[in-house]
Amino acid sequence: MLHAEIVSIGDELLIGQIINTNASYISNSLNAIGVDVSRVTTIGDHEKRLSAAIALAWKENDIVIATGGLGPTHDDISKVIVAKFFKKKLVLHPPTLRRVEARFKTFGIGKMPKANISQAMIPEGFTVLNNDRGTAPGLLYYQGAKTFVILPGVPHEMKWLMEQHVIQLLKKNYAKKLGDVILHKTILTIGIGESLLAEKVGDVSTFLAKGATLAYLPKLSGVRMRISVRSNDEKNGKDTLRRIEKFIRKQISPFIFGCNDDTLEEAVVGLLQKQKTTVSTAESCTGGMLSMKLTNVSGSSAVFPGGIISYANAIKIKQLGVPQAIINKYGAVSEQCAAAMAECVRKKFGTTYALSITGIAGPDGATPEKPVGTIWIALAQEHTKTLTKLYHLGSERSINRERSSDLALELLRRRLLNLS
Amino acid sequence: MLHAEIVSIGDELLIGQIINTNASYISNSLNAIGVDVSRVTTIGDHEKRLSAAIALAWKENDIVIATGGLGPTHDDISKVIVAKFFKKKLVLHPPTLRRVEARFKTFGIGKMPKANISQAMIPEGFTVLNNDRGTAPGLLYYQGAKTFVILPGVPHEMKWLMEQHVIQLLKKNYAKKLGDVILHKTILTIGIGESLLAEKVGDVSTFLAKGATLAYLPKLSGVRMRISVRSNDEKNGKDTLRRIEKFIRKQISPFIFGCNDDTLEEAVVGLLQKQKTTVSTAESCTGGMLSMKLTNVSGSSAVFPGGIISYANAIKIKQLGVPQAIINKYGAVSEQCAAAMAECVRKKFGTTYALSITGIAGPDGATPEKPVGTIWIALAQEHTKTLTKLYHLGSERSINRERSSDLALELLRRRLLNLS
Repeated sequence: MLHAEIVSIGDELLIGQIINTNASYISNSLNAIGVDVSRVTTIGDHEKRLSAAIALAWKENDIVIATGGLGPTHDDISKVIVAKFFKKKLVLHPPTLRRVEARFKTFGIGKMPKANISQAMIPEGFTVLNNDRGTAPGLLYYQGAKTFVILPGVPHEMKWLMEQHVIQLLKKNYAKKLGDVILHKTILTIGIGESLLAEKVGDVSTFLAKGATLAYLPKLSGVRMRISVRSNDEKNGKDTLRRIEKFIRKQISPFIFGCNDDTLEEAVVGLLQKQKTTVSTAESCTGGMLSMKLTNVSGSSAVFPGGIISYANAIKIKQLGVPQAIINKYGAVSEQCAAAMAECVRKKFGTTYALSITGIAGPDGATPEKPVGTIWIALAQEHTKTLTKLYHLGSERSINRERSSDLALELLRRRLLNLS
Repeated sequence: MLHAEIVSIGDELLIGQIINTNASYISNSLNAIGVDVSRVTTIGDHEKRLSAAIALAWKENDIVIATGGLGPTHDDISKVIVAKFFKKKLVLHPPTLRRVEARFKTFGIGKMPKANISQAMIPEGFTVLNNDRGTAPGLLYYQGAKTFVILPGVPHEMKWLMEQHVIQLLKKNYAKKLGDVILHKTILTIGIGESLLAEKVGDVSTFLAKGATLAYLPKLSGVRMRISVRSNDEKNGKDTLRRIEKFIRKQISPFIFGCNDDTLEEAVVGLLQKQKTTVSTAESCTGGMLSMKLTNVSGSSAVFPGGIISYANAIKIKQLGVPQAIINKYGAVSEQCAAAMAECVRKKFGTTYALSITGIAGPDGATPEKPVGTIWIALAQEHTKTLTKLYHLGSERSINRERSSDLALELLRRRLLNLS
């Protein structure tokens, strides 16, 4: 197994100005060819700390990929420090200088500023990785069986260099050592907590193969289960992954709505499409979020004609047709009002199903009987008793709205699958 | 100067599945109170590597903040390793157990599964930081002048614990040692591109003080301008920041809708509240996103009674009242339809203003005359000619929906400020 470390360089990463998306991109690329990423170290443009980080990374890994600090300005110190660490002199690389000069011409920026000459200075013995996306080349150095790479930190330049140069070179040079591929599949669940899920799935040691792991990743409205398989053979790895997935699906199938990048709304829209049924919406506290989610899905127009956002009580009464008496007697956040909202919008819009949400998202509007987080959701269907559900969510408005929308989608998903 | 290291724990961070947003949030929070972040180390759920990372971080820093691996399942090993490193026994902490049990009750999930008992096991001598957002408490340990903190990796739980506990405690304990404060203020603009903005603002060297920087950060629907000031005195720093902000505001005031975490919808709702006017919405391609944005703002019920999502043409005609002839003659994506949608919903809902959006978000629905990204937006107002605007946005559905919603809000903002 080959181990790699990513060293992300730049003050902007340490003062919270920039989120380190480069590291996850590089991790992904390395994993895909069977290189394990053992650590990501993020460090500022600080000579002593950077030297120490490079030394440690180089000592403990087969491959080190550093990014950042290759620009032409005084605070870009990475190359100097790398040269020093490997005891190499920085020498002018004429082909790179010509490339940098040409870039200034091509892009109409004019004559190359003097500062950019520094970008053509290369540590002796390093391989230059031509950069078609910017002025700073990537640099690569072999020592024994180890490889050191440094790339510019600008994400689209880094990605281009990874794809065009680094991954190819690593695949070639480590061909014999790259046996192990790492494959992932994420199963997406909803309607069940992490620990109950783990209970239902059971003791992982009974079904996980060697080299396989299962991780539970709780999100706002559900738990993601990531299966990872490490294998020296891609086909075997895929088989193992499939076997584990099949086992897990058997234990918890009603709670699974998709995998990897699927969304709950895609699952619901897909089921509606398949069953040639439609849904409309009547939203109060979510104010359009449920409809927005449904229409996130391209092709949703076949199953979702529209909805009414009845944020004010007057609109619930006048536009939706909720009886004034219901609101007077039970209030707008009530089982009766939720049911009426769903039934009214279903009739008006002529859909198979209708979903409604009314609640107190917070921070205002709470009463002693109806604290913030009190949410009623209803699902109406012709010739069927309207289903109503009460939830007590938390105190945060945005989270309550998000979870309410997902809970409504989940009610419909279960109905479409005859799960409730 | 106090130095801190952030240790981000979790396999999901090393396989590129999750971008490490926690680290930048924590960096920001620490910088704001004058703590320098010297390194971020990201490490998997791997005993040996995690122990080594904690040891190194603890050796070289005054403060270590670790996140992740505090869940109830078998792959959550952080607490055990931390306890081992500090040579502490894990002991049951009854108040925490009661809190975890209570959480399961409150949220109607039922009885606490056995696995969650582990979340109430605390290393002896550690301070428990109660977590109102989840089951895993934060943990804090002082040794000499050093502080070790570990928090759950779920972002909203981590943030809550940082705000409610960690930052307060650090400020109290290190009052005398906190160094240079770094202050940021971000001015939010819309309706003007980055280079025009830079032209209007002028040469930064004429108004930026020593230690101050100005960065232009283009986002989907506007450009953010971040002013940063480093100062050894909070009051001086704030004065400098205020002076720079005042200068910038003078140059570009019509384009500024807020600062820092303000949103465009907050600006619009605020203006409506102040002017005691109201708005309703008629949405087609955005499918509820515009309404969702307006109702993101707590207190929006005073200015937004609701809207109609008329995704299907039949709904535009039957529910909104758009004349069938308009749709037959010009199509649903047309100036005439957008104007009718806004005028109809305004009358039905009795609001001062109404906004409508109809367009081709993509990827389906395009025609040679109306390519993906063609969007019509209308703003209706009583006794005023309806304003209509045509936009040609890009090819990506989600971006088109997002930008359309913001463009509609910006139309209304300019009307409310008499800017157009």
